[in-house]
Amino acid sequence: MTTRYDYIHDGPAIYAESFATIRREARLDGFTPAQEKVVVRMIHACGMVEIAPDVVFSADFTDSAKAALQAGAPILCDAKMVANGITKARLPARNEIICLLDDPRVPALAAQIGNTRSAAALDLWGERMGGAVVAIGNAPTALFRLLELVDAGAPRPAAVIGLPVGFVGAAESKEALARHGQLPYVTLPGRRGGSAMTVAAVNALGSEAE
Amino acid sequence: MTTRYDYIHDGPAIYAESFATIRREARLDGFTPAQEKVVVRMIHACGMVEIAPDVVFSADFTDSAKAALQAGAPILCDAKMVANGITKARLPARNEIICLLDDPRVPALAAQIGNTRSAAALDLWGERMGGAVVAIGNAPTALFRLLELVDAGAPRPAAVIGLPVGFVGAAESKEALARHGQLPYVTLPGRRGGSAMTVAAVNALGSEAE
Repeated sequence: MTTRYDYIHDGPAIYAESFATIRREARLDGFTPAQEKVVVRMIHACGMVEIAPDVVFSADFTDSAKAALQAGAPILCDAKMVANGITKARLPARNEIICLLDDPRVPALAAQIGNTRSAAALDLWGERMGGAVVAIGNAPTALFRLLELVDAGAPRPAAVIGLPVGFVGAAESKEALARHGQLPYVTLPGRRGGSAMTVAAVNALGSEAE
Repeated sequence: MTTRYDYIHDGPAIYAESFATIRREARLDGFTPAQEKVVVRMIHACGMVEIAPDVVFSADFTDSAKAALQAGAPILCDAKMVANGITKARLPARNEIICLLDDPRVPALAAQIGNTRSAAALDLWGERMGGAVVAIGNAPTALFRLLELVDAGAPRPAAVIGLPVGFVGAAESKEALARHGQLPYVTLPGRRGGSAMTVAAVNALGSEAE
């Protein structure tokens, strides 16, 4: 087929040039090498190098998240787009990817606890929370619920990717995560975030390959 | 469960307040009412009111996309995250949602045409392209391939949501879409875009309800 469009057709070449552009343009000083890989992939997912200086990690996040994945921890997701976006081939231990939003118990549970379905679905994670990697890329109520469950004695996750997006509760829930003090985390304060950025962070942690 | 966090727990109230905030802060003048609904949902998906002035529609886009969905047109997606994110309950005619990236023919086809798997998957859309709503939220190569297929005589889609994201080809492919002249489209020029924003546009077009 003839084409009037001149563009790179090779997937690996596109990745390489994308990551090179990000590393050329983004302010990545101050991150550890492991953190830097997460930030680069988050930038890749949203097309915005300008988020770099705003991404915040707890010092223990990358080590804890990577060790958990290596040990076979499940990845607990608040949204189906997050669960579906994770590249399974990058995970080191065939880690289970879990999103319980469609569980038939969720609507009644949401009514019972007086919260959103996204938040109620977390109550079904149960013992799986212990040592898990939690990936919240959509609902601020899910991130708040996570903190409430941990405060109430639920098993602690190994790491929390806290990147809910939006205009109601997103900034507040991410601030609460950063202030919580008992959970290794990465977040992007403010309104920005979302499922693509969250998936990118998981994909970065799953494999050393770029 | 006691909580130390004060946040809105009611899903519909969160939506209403989110959309009210967006309409208060975003520059939405200049859009038709139908376009405005699409832009508001795109903003909702990324948390950035500042994208509003940059969203570009062809004049025929919303009418053509909505008529196609009403008539039962399929939604053809470049990425699984796009396909999985669309809210089926908002679609007016149980419209089929199609992403062929995992089709077993794709790897060989990609090698044959010398393009990415994302681009090659479009070659399998075939006759389904005619009158379809195309939703491209990830791969610039898929958007370029769409234009190539149309140029080569493939059946024309009714509307194209062209929102690939990233650093290599995203800006160029969206510019090519806007200049193509034969396809009703919405796009966001530059690097920004992505699956969440793309899903949001589809969801806005599927139903009048907010």
